[in-house]
Amino acid sequence: MALVTRLQHTVVFRLVHAPGSAEEAAFLATARGTLTAIPGVTDFTVNRQVSPKSDLTWQFSMVFADDAAYAAYDAHPAHRGFVETRWVPEVAAFQEYDLVVEQPAG
Amino acid sequence: MALVTRLQHTVVFRLVHAPGSAEEAAFLATARGTLTAIPGVTDFTVNRQVSPKSDLTWQFSMVFADDAAYAAYDAHPAHRGFVETRWVPEVAAFQEYDLVVEQPAG
Repeated sequence: MALVTRLQHTVVFRLVHAPGSAEEAAFLATARGTLTAIPGVTDFTVNRQVSPKSDLTWQFSMVFADDAAYAAYDAHPAHRGFVETRWVPEVAAFQEYDLVVEQPAG
Repeated sequence: MALVTRLQHTVVFRLVHAPGSAEEAAFLATARGTLTAIPGVTDFTVNRQVSPKSDLTWQFSMVFADDAAYAAYDAHPAHRGFVETRWVPEVAAFQEYDLVVEQPAG
């Protein structure tokens, strides 16, 4: 049974590539194509992180219907392959956050 | 002139209060009431941060039409007062990220 519903999975990161480089564009395009093709991924967005209070420069955000859908994505061979072949060699630093909306009390 | 449009301002944080405490609930309710009353703030959400890969446990997210609206919020006396009287004494750790959607290339 799902423990949480509507889980927003995010990762904010910095690439080893120069900003504006062809390598940067290729990484983002491959990520978008690969990850959006995995079942359960919805509302996939690539965001620029523009606050000077962090040295991380990009964010991926995606929404899953529940934690079971997120777990299936995490274990999917296309996700594992992307992490191994692109994420690990091309990402210099990152931080994940998983978010669940809290309704107002009362 | 606005440099960016549709800026999502986020801050992920951990309180000094115990999880589930009345002090925690009061902080979240005051934040919601105070910050949503400031002009320019839209789509304000309180999220639980549930990834074990971070020790921060809450996130506020809000969307501004552009960076000028965000700057006006940041300088607003109600925001400054909240930061001084509640945020500084009650938040143990935090990290801000500001996000701008990047459209697919091509």
